[in-house]
Amino acid sequence: MIDTMQLGILQKERRNNIVKKNLLVAQSGSPSAAINATLCGVVEQGLANEKIDKIYGAKNGLMGVLSERFVDLTEILEDPEARQQLCRTPSSVLGACRMKLSPWEETVFEYEKAISIFRKYNIGYFIYIGGSHSMDTAYKLSTYCEAHDIHDIRIIGVPKTIENDLPNTDHSPGFGSAAKYVATTIAEIACDCHVYALPSVTLVEIAGTESGWLTAASALARINGEQAPDLIYLCEKPFSIDRFLSDVRDKMTQKHSLLIAVSEGLRNEDGTYLSDSLQSHAEDVFGHKILAGVARFLEEILRQEIGCKVRSVELNLMQRSASHLASQTDITEAIRIGRVAVAFAVEGGDGEMACIKRISNEPYKSEMSFVPLDTVVHGVKKVPQEWICPEGNDITQEMMEYLLPLIQGEISCSYRNGIPIHFHIPR
Amino acid sequence: MIDTMQLGILQKERRNNIVKKNLLVAQSGSPSAAINATLCGVVEQGLANEKIDKIYGAKNGLMGVLSERFVDLTEILEDPEARQQLCRTPSSVLGACRMKLSPWEETVFEYEKAISIFRKYNIGYFIYIGGSHSMDTAYKLSTYCEAHDIHDIRIIGVPKTIENDLPNTDHSPGFGSAAKYVATTIAEIACDCHVYALPSVTLVEIAGTESGWLTAASALARINGEQAPDLIYLCEKPFSIDRFLSDVRDKMTQKHSLLIAVSEGLRNEDGTYLSDSLQSHAEDVFGHKILAGVARFLEEILRQEIGCKVRSVELNLMQRSASHLASQTDITEAIRIGRVAVAFAVEGGDGEMACIKRISNEPYKSEMSFVPLDTVVHGVKKVPQEWICPEGNDITQEMMEYLLPLIQGEISCSYRNGIPIHFHIPR
Repeated sequence: MIDTMQLGILQKERRNNIVKKNLLVAQSGSPSAAINATLCGVVEQGLANEKIDKIYGAKNGLMGVLSERFVDLTEILEDPEARQQLCRTPSSVLGACRMKLSPWEETVFEYEKAISIFRKYNIGYFIYIGGSHSMDTAYKLSTYCEAHDIHDIRIIGVPKTIENDLPNTDHSPGFGSAAKYVATTIAEIACDCHVYALPSVTLVEIAGTESGWLTAASALARINGEQAPDLIYLCEKPFSIDRFLSDVRDKMTQKHSLLIAVSEGLRNEDGTYLSDSLQSHAEDVFGHKILAGVARFLEEILRQEIGCKVRSVELNLMQRSASHLASQTDITEAIRIGRVAVAFAVEGGDGEMACIKRISNEPYKSEMSFVPLDTVVHGVKKVPQEWICPEGNDITQEMMEYLLPLIQGEISCSYRNGIPIHFHIPR
Repeated sequence: MIDTMQLGILQKERRNNIVKKNLLVAQSGSPSAAINATLCGVVEQGLANEKIDKIYGAKNGLMGVLSERFVDLTEILEDPEARQQLCRTPSSVLGACRMKLSPWEETVFEYEKAISIFRKYNIGYFIYIGGSHSMDTAYKLSTYCEAHDIHDIRIIGVPKTIENDLPNTDHSPGFGSAAKYVATTIAEIACDCHVYALPSVTLVEIAGTESGWLTAASALARINGEQAPDLIYLCEKPFSIDRFLSDVRDKMTQKHSLLIAVSEGLRNEDGTYLSDSLQSHAEDVFGHKILAGVARFLEEILRQEIGCKVRSVELNLMQRSASHLASQTDITEAIRIGRVAVAFAVEGGDGEMACIKRISNEPYKSEMSFVPLDTVVHGVKKVPQEWICPEGNDITQEMMEYLLPLIQGEISCSYRNGIPIHFHIPR
């Protein structure tokens, strides 16, 4: 059944030979320094593509979709200078959410609501930029559409994660910038922590609960000759405190101050998180458990067992938000992947995640491709065991070769009044 | 009594009308992003000054002086490119020490040793770059010389501290770069922590045990429109947990996520450190006290009392070593103060500390001057009470005007392989 108004539109579109649809884009998951660059790519392709009319951005990911909190990015990001600023802004300007869809086989409420909102806004393309939870959302929405014969709303996922744990892509946008931050910061801290002629250990805790990619990037600090890190422990190897102490004692016979990089997700040989060991015992003034990180836990162990000066440093929010130090390679790829995702959806792509394929290392070349969403929502991309040295306390040359191209190039960050300029969605 | 050899030297010098002496320079105290720029200034002036022959650098401050661990900086830093790299390298390339001289009235051993080593190496000028402990060393050595009629060894202190707590100088080199790091990082974290539409508090702990200058610099994040920090607590005001909770509850009626900056040295109204409250109660798996920072302490309090998501972030070693983000104004002044210190010593200056005088804010102008070392070794430069808002939870416009010029300008950092190049003293 086509009503008179729809008929009018259809006739007009046939005259122009172009059926225009609107595009909806949302961001979610933990922020990164590159996710706004991907948004920029989506908007650029949306503005350039004649089959796309308006570009809406949903605030706070799926939550904003379901509550119709949309902004008109066609207007907001029309100015190239605004888009340039957007690419230099950390975190997700559209906001994010922590919302997991129940399978539609159990409850269709949110699915029906989403589709009715898509219809209301004439959304033909939905681009969801995020990590594994966002890919799960995109996957579920897309299987719902397929099962219900909805073919005029095309759903594409675009990866983003500083932890680099999404499978079926060589790497994810956001990782290269985080890796550049980690490598630079370890190189700078190395200058700092070797300054006293006293035995000391500096422990640096790096993001990664399930995969050690970003911790491995600490090794890049050596590339210009820095003598750090001395030891690197990834969460892919079960962690033994005895072996750790023996490694530290051994290294300390060679030099007085050590810098050690550890993944936040280190686990004991029985599979429990190292950081749980502390949480389950220590209490604060109120009798609450102290939530301590793995570096702080190891700090206490070293203080007791080695007795030297020990410090622990968490790279915390800085490793995912230091956009002033973003990798040009990462930002360029982040923009590109946003662009191709839109172009692919317009050409008929649906239910897939955009991914990066590495073509060569020297010179570094990559191309954008697509994989079905169902191949990425299950499982985590871990560091291959053969890229970790047999002793489990460092990485191999293959890992260095994988990492190095991803941190290349510096962005031209715009400063005003001495600090970087960030872009914000007008209220 | 002049022996034959000395007579020969004197005759030669009289022929040239120039008495050449060697210069000794050392660095000490906690590192900063600008202390190597000051070393560069010292070396540049040393190389250019016809009354200076060799320039020695002592490794690990006073410790290296007393153990004659000298390097020849005339050679090592002859190349302008090496000096340029030095200015972009964080921490003290000569190393530092934690050594406090006993008063010479009690024991003269180290004093006599230092003077004999100065004589052995024909040192006419000793430049000590550092914080309050280093100024104390320079002061004691200089009073010893004065009391013992030693007038041919001139001792000058040059300030360095990210905490900005040295008195009798408008500010100290190193502070501006740390302030720029703090402002930039708070602006970036602000983008990150407001991303979810959920009540949350992010606490950021900033260096400063006795003074809150660097914590105050967090307010510079607002200069380009960032809505952060929401609350700022400096260690100059006694801290009340009740008032803090009331401030947080009040702000949360206006916005869902808060960013709060706190000085590491916050104290209770009874004068005890806030962080001690936790240390004195909590224990780890081994029954050791947990050394927790003030942000982590407040994190637990907020979790219990407000019940929202709370995170704490320590800027830790990064705030003093992030030389890739150094302030051009700071680096320029750091080089200048090193140069004038040497020129002043050669012209007869002795027993003084180089200092910075602010001439004007718009445009920002400063000049280098000198103050007697005895006026800086006692006391700490605290933030004036009138630069803290009456509620004690923010800073005033006067403070903003003081801070803003010091973070202006970006250095051109040299990258190779995607990370900054650092200078190291050859082994």
